[in-house]
Amino acid sequence: MKLTILGCHAATPTASTHPTSQVLEMKGHLFLIDCGEGTQVQLRKCKVKFSRIKHIFISHLHGDHFFGLVGLISTFLLLGREAELHVYGPKGIKEAILLLLKLGKAYTNYPLYFHELTENTPQIIFEDDKVSVETIPLDHRVYTNGFLFKEKPDDRKLNVEAARDLNIDMSYYNKIKQGFDVENKAGKLISNSEITFDPPPPKSYAFCSDTAYNPTMVPQLEGTTVLYHESTFLEEHYNLCEKTKHSTAKEAAAIAKKANVETLILGHYSSRYGNLELFRKEAQEIFENVELAEDGKIFSF
Amino acid sequence: MKLTILGCHAATPTASTHPTSQVLEMKGHLFLIDCGEGTQVQLRKCKVKFSRIKHIFISHLHGDHFFGLVGLISTFLLLGREAELHVYGPKGIKEAILLLLKLGKAYTNYPLYFHELTENTPQIIFEDDKVSVETIPLDHRVYTNGFLFKEKPDDRKLNVEAARDLNIDMSYYNKIKQGFDVENKAGKLISNSEITFDPPPPKSYAFCSDTAYNPTMVPQLEGTTVLYHESTFLEEHYNLCEKTKHSTAKEAAAIAKKANVETLILGHYSSRYGNLELFRKEAQEIFENVELAEDGKIFSF
Repeated sequence: MKLTILGCHAATPTASTHPTSQVLEMKGHLFLIDCGEGTQVQLRKCKVKFSRIKHIFISHLHGDHFFGLVGLISTFLLLGREAELHVYGPKGIKEAILLLLKLGKAYTNYPLYFHELTENTPQIIFEDDKVSVETIPLDHRVYTNGFLFKEKPDDRKLNVEAARDLNIDMSYYNKIKQGFDVENKAGKLISNSEITFDPPPPKSYAFCSDTAYNPTMVPQLEGTTVLYHESTFLEEHYNLCEKTKHSTAKEAAAIAKKANVETLILGHYSSRYGNLELFRKEAQEIFENVELAEDGKIFSF
Repeated sequence: MKLTILGCHAATPTASTHPTSQVLEMKGHLFLIDCGEGTQVQLRKCKVKFSRIKHIFISHLHGDHFFGLVGLISTFLLLGREAELHVYGPKGIKEAILLLLKLGKAYTNYPLYFHELTENTPQIIFEDDKVSVETIPLDHRVYTNGFLFKEKPDDRKLNVEAARDLNIDMSYYNKIKQGFDVENKAGKLISNSEITFDPPPPKSYAFCSDTAYNPTMVPQLEGTTVLYHESTFLEEHYNLCEKTKHSTAKEAAAIAKKANVETLILGHYSSRYGNLELFRKEAQEIFENVELAEDGKIFSF
């Protein structure tokens, strides 16, 4: 599981800070999460093979999370893309993107599907045999979802040596990996646990931005491997959270702790702060394993 | 008259090339012309005081000329702008921008006016006592206008010494600057030309992008100080011009020559060319005074 932060700053792009966008690589998928202005350039700078992106998830329709989407869709068109592209985002996103394309007479030459979101409870919005993606309803000034990306468990690992010693026919090996008990050549039933190892535990990634402190999401996040949670403010500006529906680093850490996640990544910093280490320090008073998002940073888990 | 090239490349933005946008400083105005994705960051990088921009001119609704507009309008909002902003562009631009703002519940706190263009003949779209701006109908795949920015003549310069020698009362000085003949204290009529110098000739700037070779614009451009004309292709790719409705460097130079402009600036280069000097070389076979636009370059005239 690899996470590339293309941008992690709140509000307007500047010469040195980029609005929200990130790429999650999970089980062969390249998922793009949010798409602020300039995302296509950040994809190039971070050397992401962006023709491999087939699914784009947009949390909400504030500009710093989606003004780069139409440009990216247009660039795919100019690059001669043929593969399907799926966009998941709040209702209204389809009308907006299609209107912009229509004004430029730029119809897509590849299949472009919009999956508009309107529900206020968690929904599975994408699933295949390797991963699932579900919405995390968030509490922001406009309709907003986070996204929970979950690997499905791998097959069990065959203990080839044990299987040979126990005289099991090779034709059973696939069944064994799927968890079945099988008979050996002498007709004796061999327990699956004797001839397999546990696969690595499936990983999961939760993206939660933008949101006020919202503990109702905790049960859904229980045990998540990595939680990206916005921390627009430090506690000293707690008063700004209510009006803007954002969180402090301390609140992000409280969610991480309650949900027993393994790692918390902070991001979506307000431009008022020069020293981002203050966010880590504040969060670590509550939750130890804190990382700071930075534009261009790559996390591997 | 100062021209800052924010971006001058065709099609998609990349890590090193920016789509069309430029700022023209003329008689105290800061005019923004076109606004491809990333324009607001380019404005910051080029240190343009962009709160001073009150008029934005959009040539056409292809993404590389206007996908940065909504982000810039939103940033003005976040920065607490109060001054009026006027946007001039093809019909449809208002609906698109307002829809995007509405989706994010981002209503502007400053007066935002759209002036939608639909005419196919030159129209004066802005005028005050110092400058005028008129459309230049262009020939592209969608409805497109160039823009001709013209200084109005300054007052005549008073020759104070001559006026004193000729015994003219100071109360006439303003009238003299406005071009009138006046009587001196002895009652003799003094010709204006005896007591004034010519003001510097008014300057003009024509922006013509994107367009196929379009000599119908020549009379309107006659004697223009500076012509920015797109040159997406070199003559070796002339065959691409017809389908895409773009021009070669040679065609841009032909327009410059026919219109007797002083300086031609080339831009809107296709990404297929590595060496931009080839554009200059090709154009100079027809017209001598050729400059090449480059992202971040500032021209003073």
